[in-house]
Amino acid sequence: MSKDDFIVTPWHVEGKIDYDKLIKRFGTEKISNELLQRIEKIAGESHFMLRRGIFFSHRDMKRILDDYEKGNDFFLYTGRGPSGHTHIGHLVPWVFAKWLQDKFKTKMYFQLTDDEKFFSKPNLTLDETKKYAYENALDFIALGFKPENTKIIIDTENIQTLYPIAARVAKKINFSNTKAVFGFSNDTNIGMIFYTSLQSAPCFIENKPVLIPLGVDQDPHFRITRDVAPKIGKPKPALIHNIMIPALQGPGGKMSASEENTTIYTTDDADTVKKKINKYAFSGGQPDVEEHRKKGGNPDIDVSYQYLRIFFEPDDNKLKQIYDDYKSGKMLTGELKLILIEKINEFLKNHQEKREKARDQVKKFLFENS
Amino acid sequence: MSKDDFIVTPWHVEGKIDYDKLIKRFGTEKISNELLQRIEKIAGESHFMLRRGIFFSHRDMKRILDDYEKGNDFFLYTGRGPSGHTHIGHLVPWVFAKWLQDKFKTKMYFQLTDDEKFFSKPNLTLDETKKYAYENALDFIALGFKPENTKIIIDTENIQTLYPIAARVAKKINFSNTKAVFGFSNDTNIGMIFYTSLQSAPCFIENKPVLIPLGVDQDPHFRITRDVAPKIGKPKPALIHNIMIPALQGPGGKMSASEENTTIYTTDDADTVKKKINKYAFSGGQPDVEEHRKKGGNPDIDVSYQYLRIFFEPDDNKLKQIYDDYKSGKMLTGELKLILIEKINEFLKNHQEKREKARDQVKKFLFENS
Repeated sequence: MSKDDFIVTPWHVEGKIDYDKLIKRFGTEKISNELLQRIEKIAGESHFMLRRGIFFSHRDMKRILDDYEKGNDFFLYTGRGPSGHTHIGHLVPWVFAKWLQDKFKTKMYFQLTDDEKFFSKPNLTLDETKKYAYENALDFIALGFKPENTKIIIDTENIQTLYPIAARVAKKINFSNTKAVFGFSNDTNIGMIFYTSLQSAPCFIENKPVLIPLGVDQDPHFRITRDVAPKIGKPKPALIHNIMIPALQGPGGKMSASEENTTIYTTDDADTVKKKINKYAFSGGQPDVEEHRKKGGNPDIDVSYQYLRIFFEPDDNKLKQIYDDYKSGKMLTGELKLILIEKINEFLKNHQEKREKARDQVKKFLFENS
Repeated sequence: MSKDDFIVTPWHVEGKIDYDKLIKRFGTEKISNELLQRIEKIAGESHFMLRRGIFFSHRDMKRILDDYEKGNDFFLYTGRGPSGHTHIGHLVPWVFAKWLQDKFKTKMYFQLTDDEKFFSKPNLTLDETKKYAYENALDFIALGFKPENTKIIIDTENIQTLYPIAARVAKKINFSNTKAVFGFSNDTNIGMIFYTSLQSAPCFIENKPVLIPLGVDQDPHFRITRDVAPKIGKPKPALIHNIMIPALQGPGGKMSASEENTTIYTTDDADTVKKKINKYAFSGGQPDVEEHRKKGGNPDIDVSYQYLRIFFEPDDNKLKQIYDDYKSGKMLTGELKLILIEKINEFLKNHQEKREKARDQVKKFLFENS
């Protein structure tokens, strides 16, 4: 792989991603200003993740809005591969999905793919991925979802419902398709090969079109689903993609739940957050204070600034002030990190309380096989 | 494929099978006289299908008997791919399994692979294969199994139980393995590729060794299972194989539930049986009566004789008499066919009564997901 190249698949992200190139490579559509305004108009307000290009790309979002304006409902679906505890990057599509659910008054399905992570991680047992599935569910519930319109699917618990749908999808996908889309080889295990049909299954769980807010690395699964959908007489799923959330160490990868120090977990305590940000968060600042005051920092590559932009500072004015101050050299890296640490810890204090309360609620959210 | 060659896979049987060659090709063991006598001694009697080499090959049958004699129990497992109504060839391993169950006092699992037949037959829907699964279950129950020690598994109904076991198996099998064993290609659908792990799953449903009586064409699935078993800390399944039951048209294939006129269905009425045998059953006789009286017939290639040998005439003396009379020319092909027709219709009259009664019993046999 050359220095400028990058890889984006559901199981491997590497290199500095050029999102315009990725849109071309994946064949998705960039979210235009026109589409932004249209969403804003229907929703009654904008969302900072849309304004800031955190959600940057889509498939068939216009069709979803056309149908919606004609009075035809859709449902939402997103998910998580439970390979470890939830980190703050995972929350991005979930928070946005909650906003979509509130604005469009839709039903929501959340899939926890314990089987996928068992297949893809050599050292994880199925008992472990299932345990993480229940842990991750707490983070999802803590964001304010309601059991009346939100159902959590756990693959091994809901396989009775998923498998007959997945089988109809799987019959239309051959090994070549999975090689082309995921880069599978003859060494890939047959659980992994079959798995994409299970990630497709929730798209067809209701007799309505689906909109999927998700990290762009998951797009390949639904490229396959979209090819299969008309062959089984179903509407193609629509997608809206967020960028990859950078690891603490900086761009050139995504946060990984299985690498402790690249990530802030939702279960980290205040002191751990402080230490991780101070020690690991990649800085766009200059080597010393004098030089920083003179030349200023680079917020575009600074991970602390990026976390504020992506998740922790929804106020555009405050964010702009931080940007300007850091860029001019007025704000030092330590000061920027302090802002982020306080924001994260404020968020996590509240989140962790709700997360514990969710333990009593989780049963009400679990999808029941009929 | 050369004239003398043959193909045996779970989905395709072609050519005249040389069973000694097949034993070498698959790496199984021929059932020796010593093993026959040992089974007879433990069971208290012999079974004509063993004596006549209908069951001709095995894997680890000796280990099963060693353990059994030490007081360590095993369980039985066999199955059926429900692509159509049951034909008389399907009954061979089931009848033998019933005998094993009675003699060894074991539990029995019977798997109906509605998903497999959906994946492998382009024109069948999942609803159709599931419908046939319930129909086939009636034939199985009609053979005299008891719900106390016999459970019927239907893949799409019991996937909740099967999938977590299958997933542990699937993680240890890669695409190369399935290419080598089944001859899969890049065009094979991913349902088919994954499926073998679901046929493995019942092997590990109890914490005991399993013995599987089955058509030798199904051996490839369990060759994979036997490779995987030690990797997941389980005993290798033991197998005992029956020969392929010839189509009415003669050797060079097996009976196929999806080709109407190659087969006697358990649901055929007496008149249909008579017509099919008279019209289609391949004859080892001579072109005309004079020549037949002079030269005699060849029972070894005569399908009517073979059906008597394989299933419908358990009495060795009576069978020998038919063999000798046909070979000498004393018995004409029409007379031989008449014996078979009467035997089949006598069997089916009784079977069809029990089959209808089974409709009320089937619920008691169905495996319940915990």
